[in-house]
Amino acid sequence: MGRKYNFSAGPAMLPEAVLQQAQEELSNWHGAGASIMEMSHRGKEFVSVHAEAENDVRELLSIPTNYKVLFLQGGATAQFATIPMNLLRGKSKADYVLTGSWGKKAISEAKKYCTVNLAASPDGDKFTSIPPNERWSLSQDAAYVHYTPNETIEGVEFHWIPKTGDVPLVADFSSTILSRPIDVSKFGLIYAGAQKNIGPAGLTLVIVRDDLIGNVLPITPSPFDYAKQAEADSMLNTPPTFGVYLAGLVFKWLKTQGGLSAMAKVNERKAQKLYAAIDNSSFYSNPVEKASRSWMNVTFILANAELDKEFLAGAEAAGLTTLQGHRSVGGMRASIYNAMPEAGVDALISYMADFEKRKA
Amino acid sequence: MGRKYNFSAGPAMLPEAVLQQAQEELSNWHGAGASIMEMSHRGKEFVSVHAEAENDVRELLSIPTNYKVLFLQGGATAQFATIPMNLLRGKSKADYVLTGSWGKKAISEAKKYCTVNLAASPDGDKFTSIPPNERWSLSQDAAYVHYTPNETIEGVEFHWIPKTGDVPLVADFSSTILSRPIDVSKFGLIYAGAQKNIGPAGLTLVIVRDDLIGNVLPITPSPFDYAKQAEADSMLNTPPTFGVYLAGLVFKWLKTQGGLSAMAKVNERKAQKLYAAIDNSSFYSNPVEKASRSWMNVTFILANAELDKEFLAGAEAAGLTTLQGHRSVGGMRASIYNAMPEAGVDALISYMADFEKRKA
Repeated sequence: MGRKYNFSAGPAMLPEAVLQQAQEELSNWHGAGASIMEMSHRGKEFVSVHAEAENDVRELLSIPTNYKVLFLQGGATAQFATIPMNLLRGKSKADYVLTGSWGKKAISEAKKYCTVNLAASPDGDKFTSIPPNERWSLSQDAAYVHYTPNETIEGVEFHWIPKTGDVPLVADFSSTILSRPIDVSKFGLIYAGAQKNIGPAGLTLVIVRDDLIGNVLPITPSPFDYAKQAEADSMLNTPPTFGVYLAGLVFKWLKTQGGLSAMAKVNERKAQKLYAAIDNSSFYSNPVEKASRSWMNVTFILANAELDKEFLAGAEAAGLTTLQGHRSVGGMRASIYNAMPEAGVDALISYMADFEKRKA
Repeated sequence: MGRKYNFSAGPAMLPEAVLQQAQEELSNWHGAGASIMEMSHRGKEFVSVHAEAENDVRELLSIPTNYKVLFLQGGATAQFATIPMNLLRGKSKADYVLTGSWGKKAISEAKKYCTVNLAASPDGDKFTSIPPNERWSLSQDAAYVHYTPNETIEGVEFHWIPKTGDVPLVADFSSTILSRPIDVSKFGLIYAGAQKNIGPAGLTLVIVRDDLIGNVLPITPSPFDYAKQAEADSMLNTPPTFGVYLAGLVFKWLKTQGGLSAMAKVNERKAQKLYAAIDNSSFYSNPVEKASRSWMNVTFILANAELDKEFLAGAEAAGLTTLQGHRSVGGMRASIYNAMPEAGVDALISYMADFEKRKA
């Protein structure tokens, strides 16, 4: 299909097989004489697509039956507001752990609805490490503890699940969901914008323990009331049907790949070989402490920032796109989610070695 | 493409030419080596798609320069909450005009944020007419007046723009936007879920006069703060990129059709011939007063409701799908938005006549 290796942090690559299937059936879904995106969300065709998507993601993540799975709109950014609306449950305080730019936004939004206790943040002003669990200042009266398992911009990731006692743990899994198994039972709520590892932008996945829902702030908009959406199978209002359909194709593709344990092996290997290439070079470097390096977003800087533009132009010419780091941190960032083939990482490593040989 | 005439109220038909183009470029947009839905929303490719979509809808609707055009998420149902959040501007009351099921939902949601004055509603308990403007009880201190120009479920439509003095007029144009020209300057805010006349579900269009924004309730989630989104060109967070892209293709298709004046002629003709077929029959009937009949959603009942199932099955077999009326009102409903070809309406009329001949 003349496709390139696209290292965008999100919206990001989708599996080629998923795009091919979506393309084939775009104007006439399964002979129904209409596109899936033209069909009523209450018709039997879409209802079955939606139910299969839910079943498949439940199977992939081994989601316990006492958790609701919701397909919503608004992205993780809307969740930053709607999580306190739903989970405060009469309390007025929540604990937040800050490890990067997205956590900072989550905190800023939560402050509209409750008192935020900053339970932990890294020493210094750079987000290059994860504060150890035993140093966190958790509140006894917090409604929940929020953290960001993977920070997309800084490339910092938790490789462990925090312990928070009886206080429900809430996690923004936008950039790491489905990249490996998760023990969902350890969480009160997991949420993720779709555009990195699930499907197209405009779809948000929420997985929430059912005893935590049903007691919202009175100002909660109905489409963001988890209990109402759970009751309505995420169809209180018209869902983003094409996004749910595409997510369903991605879930089926993950099953053909061997599920999340298999994905974890590939993703770990992709990340390790790219970090090894960086560490074995004196031309590239990554500032994140080794135990907290992200498998999904690998950041690196060139020894000479004046070569950044040439590096990026050469990469584009070699079919390796969108490698520029986030404007807030600079440098480079290779986002290597599930849909990035290992061959794409190999091609990047090879290009980096060649560039270094020519320029170092 | 083996396509059928799909009378779904929404998600609804898209123009065949739009689907064909989307299909052709789905896995490789304009030779970029990636699908448009895999591209960063901050990259030059998507930014240009987004800007063109905005320019085209501005041109189609002749939107004055002092109006912001926002592409949001959450559907009209989220707007039911976020309109009072944004437009109360220190006031505590809003006027609502009730003419159908969607207006009822808008009112119920608004009551979370302000006092709702029911400025007008139809006599009796059926939504089959529009209360005349001179009978409305408008409040002097209302922050805005909200109404629903077209009620999708009942098939009742305003064929005039209400006068509300200096109080900004707010309208849910979900089911009628782009079906004909609108004098945007008469409105404070126009909003529409995309899935009827704009594009796929999951995209919401908001057109708002710029002097009305910037003074939100403190509990407003950032992605629903119109001023913040206007400042960020609707990219405060990741927008539903594929929806914006498809909407852009629909806007371009509308321009090739001659724009909204040309669409108005076709839409009026489609509706009039279908109502004429109903009125000229003693077997089918429509309960809506003639001056308030919708061009977009034509409801009708059979003289004998026991024949409903047979009517629907025969229609399906003839390639005329999704004609069942909303579960709350029963009977039939033919939604004939922009993308429904006139030939589809002709085919329906012909089927109805044939069914009547066989069964009446």
